[in-house]
Amino acid sequence: MAAPSPGYSLTLRVETPASITATSELAAAVGSAGAHITALDVTESHHTHMVVDVSCNTMDVAHGEKVRDALNGLDGVNVRNVSDRTFLMHLGGKLEVVPKVALRNRDDLSRAYTPGVARVCMAIAENPADARNLTVKRNTIAVVTDGSAVLGLGNIGPAAALPVMEGKAALFKQFADVDAWPVCLDTQDTDEIVKIVKALAPVYGGVNLEDIAAPRCFEIEARLREELDIPVFHDDQHGTAIVTLAALANALKVVEKKIEDVRIVVSGVGAAGNAIIQLLAARGAKNIIACGRNGAITRDEQYSDEHRVWLAQNTNPENFSGSLKEAVVNADVFIGVSAPNVLDEADIAAMNERAIVFAMANPDPEVDPEVAGRHAAVVATGRSDFPNQINNVLAFPGFFRGLLDAGVADITDEMLLAAADAISARVTDDELNPGFIIPSVFDPQVATDVAVAVELAAAKD
Amino acid sequence: MAAPSPGYSLTLRVETPASITATSELAAAVGSAGAHITALDVTESHHTHMVVDVSCNTMDVAHGEKVRDALNGLDGVNVRNVSDRTFLMHLGGKLEVVPKVALRNRDDLSRAYTPGVARVCMAIAENPADARNLTVKRNTIAVVTDGSAVLGLGNIGPAAALPVMEGKAALFKQFADVDAWPVCLDTQDTDEIVKIVKALAPVYGGVNLEDIAAPRCFEIEARLREELDIPVFHDDQHGTAIVTLAALANALKVVEKKIEDVRIVVSGVGAAGNAIIQLLAARGAKNIIACGRNGAITRDEQYSDEHRVWLAQNTNPENFSGSLKEAVVNADVFIGVSAPNVLDEADIAAMNERAIVFAMANPDPEVDPEVAGRHAAVVATGRSDFPNQINNVLAFPGFFRGLLDAGVADITDEMLLAAADAISARVTDDELNPGFIIPSVFDPQVATDVAVAVELAAAKD
Repeated sequence: MAAPSPGYSLTLRVETPASITATSELAAAVGSAGAHITALDVTESHHTHMVVDVSCNTMDVAHGEKVRDALNGLDGVNVRNVSDRTFLMHLGGKLEVVPKVALRNRDDLSRAYTPGVARVCMAIAENPADARNLTVKRNTIAVVTDGSAVLGLGNIGPAAALPVMEGKAALFKQFADVDAWPVCLDTQDTDEIVKIVKALAPVYGGVNLEDIAAPRCFEIEARLREELDIPVFHDDQHGTAIVTLAALANALKVVEKKIEDVRIVVSGVGAAGNAIIQLLAARGAKNIIACGRNGAITRDEQYSDEHRVWLAQNTNPENFSGSLKEAVVNADVFIGVSAPNVLDEADIAAMNERAIVFAMANPDPEVDPEVAGRHAAVVATGRSDFPNQINNVLAFPGFFRGLLDAGVADITDEMLLAAADAISARVTDDELNPGFIIPSVFDPQVATDVAVAVELAAAKD
Repeated sequence: MAAPSPGYSLTLRVETPASITATSELAAAVGSAGAHITALDVTESHHTHMVVDVSCNTMDVAHGEKVRDALNGLDGVNVRNVSDRTFLMHLGGKLEVVPKVALRNRDDLSRAYTPGVARVCMAIAENPADARNLTVKRNTIAVVTDGSAVLGLGNIGPAAALPVMEGKAALFKQFADVDAWPVCLDTQDTDEIVKIVKALAPVYGGVNLEDIAAPRCFEIEARLREELDIPVFHDDQHGTAIVTLAALANALKVVEKKIEDVRIVVSGVGAAGNAIIQLLAARGAKNIIACGRNGAITRDEQYSDEHRVWLAQNTNPENFSGSLKEAVVNADVFIGVSAPNVLDEADIAAMNERAIVFAMANPDPEVDPEVAGRHAAVVATGRSDFPNQINNVLAFPGFFRGLLDAGVADITDEMLLAAADAISARVTDDELNPGFIIPSVFDPQVATDVAVAVELAAAKD
């Protein structure tokens, strides 16, 4: 299912004989190699030859080399240089720390720094709540990871996780004007992480935990929620749960079923799976079957970790026992946050009529979405190259905007539900159809709507 | 010696009867109350009255109230509102975190975030040194404090210290394009601080320790230098030492004395005093007497802390014993980083001829600089309202610019000396005089010169 993607976009600097057909020959060669041309820029033109920057999307590193070989194979053509636009974009990092105040002269300095700043310090020392008005705490959150479960890449450590956290921080600013700072911790010890985040808290108005492996992430989140007076959000849990519920609510409208009535099978009982199940239950879902690697979680079995114990007690009311493939038979909804290709066409065909399939494993879904679409009424994935992308970007920026604006200390289920409703509501009844159950991540209104919904939910508390 | 300062700048919104003399009467009242008018803006004008925004510098909070009372005392005048420009400047904090890359569309997102970012992560996982090119580590430092010794305010804690650290970060960006982020730690335990800063290090290319009380600051700095592979700078030590040496070198030129020959008395053996003494010694000073609260540090006494032990062994070659006032008799140079008003006119008069006095205690110097100027040839302070301000802003931005550009892991004495020389050299022989031994903090060339000097010193290692 791999397709050329802008994430693997190259610019090849190519020397080619001067001729009226030169650029079209280059384009044809790139196309034959299976890449997508995005730009052709002639940077030099001479009597005998010209130099052309060929930009194209490829599938992966090997594919990029194939494109280069295809161009070099043309008569008289020489690829001088290949630059990877993704790496170019990352040179020097993706964030900067910019003063909001001018420091042009002595007067500015006297107010922003010494001696004037001393009065601001003393105001906060006397009334700690003033830190929310007089410092960056008002608008700043920490994006905290230990690098143990980064994207689908696994335990690559804090330094290698930093580009993701920088990207996340950039999204926070771009979509909701939240200042977010990456905190990539060189420790994977739960106690130490809790202790460090607590020590860092004076600067921040909230904590977004990110890409921390389960089950460690649960304990870290629970302890920080307990011990900090600023809200703690684990995007892999709560962000995913919000967006999944938002999509599911609209998908259920499409198939005209009610959340109370449907049989829902969730594949994956890590951070995302647990949070999704809890939020669906909070919204009224009654028949959820959670499946781990060994099949459905049931009341009959003994589990060592508390999350599976909770699932055993609170899901699977019919006490179904069996594999994932057996569980999806006659299910109305499949939600996958697990591993690639755990289901095939026959499994989807065996689901109930007007089935809903959310296959969100990344980059390769639990079932090929095209295949699933032959039988299911609604199919969604985590990918941007299929309809209905379930993407946390819809939730986290606006959610924190609302938390910061409301100045809340804790996140409640009501806030999560309100955020999901706000996202669902961005798809009007006119727009709603099996291929459009969730707004675009570039919908400029989503973040504001989510923020307002969170603020209103906070005000009700 | 208090004087109206822009750090205590107010804007008073005043309603006054409409008359041709109204604004001059307001200005006169402000002047009589001892404040300095900086602006008069008529914001509303009516037949019977007008509304004027009166901006002025005051000395302190009580003085601001005096100004308000003076205006209210005028016939028909009513002060509607008083706003404090320093507090206004701090509303919402002084920093923001801004993306350096656009995230306008799907292509941007695919490169800056998923899926493209995964390749950047893997490149760093495979070659950790790439983090310096592909992340913010390249240009970012942590400004770390525990809030235990903030300005002259003492142990006010991490939240109240944040406005200073934000100001520091703003200065780093403004003067040297260094991205600096405040890390205000809610712990004052040395082991914890060391552990936390080590855990945070993946994101940063350097650490600037700030306003941490002595002697804790020495151990934290020493351990972090030992254990981290990024440079660790304690501004209260090294920054102060660099600028002091820069000023002293030029002051010695003015009085035509050599550093090897002069008798130097340093008052204060905390973070700054220790670092100054070490750097002066590295530059060749041979006769330094360090004075604490109980007078000169001598070889005859037993000291419990290792810094006083070092001072006893490495300073005071004549083994002078006595009080600070006794020590300055016949001294060529007095350097104060201690407490207000520890010396008086008679003490300065008792110094050697062509004496140099650096009275840097803030906000009130060790001796009144006007009084000192009656006897000393060169007088400098830490204050902006006297000539020769010895201000760390001259050193730290350019110093870190150089460290980051050179990609060094450790700070050497050679770098500190080179930075001091670069600052001294900004004052040309033509410009040099007793009232101008150190460049202005707004000299646009200082940071670059310091950075280049540090880079060259690093290249020599």
